[in-house]
Amino acid sequence: MMDAALDDISHRRYNPLRGNWILVSPHRTKRPWLGQEETPSRNALPEHDPECYLCPGNKRSGGARNPDFDGTFVFVNDFSAVKEDQVDYETSLSDDKASLLLKAEGVKGKCYVICFSPAHNKTLADMSIPEICLVINTWQKLYRDVKQDTPFRSIQIFENKGDAMGCSNPHPHCQAWATSHLPEEPAAELTNMVEYQRAHGSCMLCDYLAIELEKKERIVAENDGWLAICPWWAFWPFETLVISKRCIKSILELETDKEKELLAQIMSAITTKYDNLFETKFPYSMGIHQAPLRGTDEEHAANHVHIHFLPPLLRSATVKKFQVGYELLAEPQRDITPEQAARRLQGLSTELYRKKLG
Amino acid sequence: MMDAALDDISHRRYNPLRGNWILVSPHRTKRPWLGQEETPSRNALPEHDPECYLCPGNKRSGGARNPDFDGTFVFVNDFSAVKEDQVDYETSLSDDKASLLLKAEGVKGKCYVICFSPAHNKTLADMSIPEICLVINTWQKLYRDVKQDTPFRSIQIFENKGDAMGCSNPHPHCQAWATSHLPEEPAAELTNMVEYQRAHGSCMLCDYLAIELEKKERIVAENDGWLAICPWWAFWPFETLVISKRCIKSILELETDKEKELLAQIMSAITTKYDNLFETKFPYSMGIHQAPLRGTDEEHAANHVHIHFLPPLLRSATVKKFQVGYELLAEPQRDITPEQAARRLQGLSTELYRKKLG
Ligand SMILES: O=P(O)(O)O[C@H]1O[C@H](CO)[C@@H](O)[C@H](O)[C@H]1O
Ligand SMILES: O=P(O)(O)O[C@H]1O[C@H](CO)[C@@H](O)[C@H](O)[C@H]1O
Repeated sequence: MMDAALDDISHRRYNPLRGNWILVSPHRTKRPWLGQEETPSRNALPEHDPECYLCPGNKRSGGARNPDFDGTFVFVNDFSAVKEDQVDYETSLSDDKASLLLKAEGVKGKCYVICFSPAHNKTLADMSIPEICLVINTWQKLYRDVKQDTPFRSIQIFENKGDAMGCSNPHPHCQAWATSHLPEEPAAELTNMVEYQRAHGSCMLCDYLAIELEKKERIVAENDGWLAICPWWAFWPFETLVISKRCIKSILELETDKEKELLAQIMSAITTKYDNLFETKFPYSMGIHQAPLRGTDEEHAANHVHIHFLPPLLRSATVKKFQVGYELLAEPQRDITPEQAARRLQGLSTELYRKKLG
Repeated sequence: MMDAALDDISHRRYNPLRGNWILVSPHRTKRPWLGQEETPSRNALPEHDPECYLCPGNKRSGGARNPDFDGTFVFVNDFSAVKEDQVDYETSLSDDKASLLLKAEGVKGKCYVICFSPAHNKTLADMSIPEICLVINTWQKLYRDVKQDTPFRSIQIFENKGDAMGCSNPHPHCQAWATSHLPEEPAAELTNMVEYQRAHGSCMLCDYLAIELEKKERIVAENDGWLAICPWWAFWPFETLVISKRCIKSILELETDKEKELLAQIMSAITTKYDNLFETKFPYSMGIHQAPLRGTDEEHAANHVHIHFLPPLLRSATVKKFQVGYELLAEPQRDITPEQAARRLQGLSTELYRKKLG
């Protein structure tokens, strides 16, 4: 049972996956808000937008024209943050203080854009389970192809959804950046998962899954394949973590149609509950963490597929939690507890409010 | 000399102070922007706003009435994130997996608000050097008082400025949160500074200061007391780091009026250059990192006062850099290089554009 005191007092919680602390101030939600409000997303988008560079048949900024795609569509980002070809950068090997303090290394990679659907006005919450299954198949194929055809160490699949999360186009899509290195966040998680496995002889997320299934205090949604919770250490107000019940290392291990359907179902449930919370197209950043494309056997064994949903809204469709001064310069801070957030999300329907209205 | 290749290729830079890597993609600034735009801050605020809970003589939400203050004004936040009095939280000492993975500790503390000026419509950039000196005196007194009168381990002084940085009131003010623990960010920096001192027998920021003064590639402003640079490892587009030239451990060591004036001058120079960059009231979060109120001798010796300015704007008064999907789930990422940012800021006047207009 959770200590009831934590519902009322300021405290820090430890995130063993990331290896950092979060300050929780449950009593702080009562303060007045005169600050910035988000513009709630316009619900009325056309099914096809002639100005959109992600719609089927339209021209992209790079000059290429999109095919008349039906399901999903993958292409290389016209403004990639990393490139396959560039000059090699010689890292200085001297150990004078300048090379110690001004350290850099070259990064090669490839950035992909994955359109979820030809329909400009859909989101994952609007899509059917078979439609989301197409997206999962596309992720699998991309992971497999990049692993086979490139020398890159890792690939990060992520979605920025909504204006508030810097999304530059509402057409439903995500991105995948493959890079020659393993980036900070998955690297830190992997280090902690490997150390846990060494120290306790078990998988960290398997152990955590068992605890959450037993305590039932932070569950948002669940099916035979997946558990969605507001994790103990959640940082964003309605942050969720989706953990596979079977200890799979990457999405490649989702083999049967049934298994993919279970993932599609939980993604649909979470995104629908999010939209229902404030009856708006709920903004978030989402990302899949899984085994890197290349790694040691120990890294592979300690891994466990999980998906992070990081949504900024706090009180309503227009008031978000700002991660600013104290959070950036001292420590991540949240107001409501993860248990309070989970209770609200759990209670919501998995039928989309827009469907009832429409 | 900086390797010219870094102006053109994707690379990562290491931040030895924080101990993390940042992805730099210098070629990426050309992409189109259809996403969210900020509302530039309204320049026309009244000098006194009867609705503002920070203006002299007005009533606050807690019910208290502000005095008719002249210079600065300090009070305890009516909606503090941490409190002095709350029940103690017993951390579980068992080492079963639940106590390992669901770890928490109580946090006590005190949150202060510091009004910079009675004038509702001023910012640091609008204030005179003597007016900014009053702010510095107030910070010193607060640090000294909290150290003497409370049991807390540390205090974080920070300012959220502008709607884009979650500031809930434009009246010029900052905050200071004192806590029973040392938060994540200063703790990570301190660990790295202590390790550096052990390994190399010198202060990390003294060594870094010497390198930047010699290379002259990232300097934004400088006077006899302080150096302001876009650090090698800057994450935000126009992030700056202000380092004291003398190796002082906390702002208490600024003893003479001259020393405080030099700090006021560099704060004025940076905030003015920021405002001049896009001719707007430039949003940022700012924070002072210095010796904790309580710590070991080694922690004290390795410390070196520095101030972080973290501003979100990238291209104009309305387009900011979003720290979203890839940044949150994989690795901090920036577009322009810190050298490019420094060149632009260095070239700007220290006379405020608004003064010329007005
Ligand atoms: O205390 P304020 O100004 O109301 O609140 C602001 O600063 C705090 C500290 O960085 C943040 O936790 C809040 O999200 C932000 O809106
Ligand atoms: O690539 P996009 O969608 O244009 O850009 C968006 O996502 C990127 C990856 O998280 C961020 O670096 C950008 O700041 C954001 O606007």
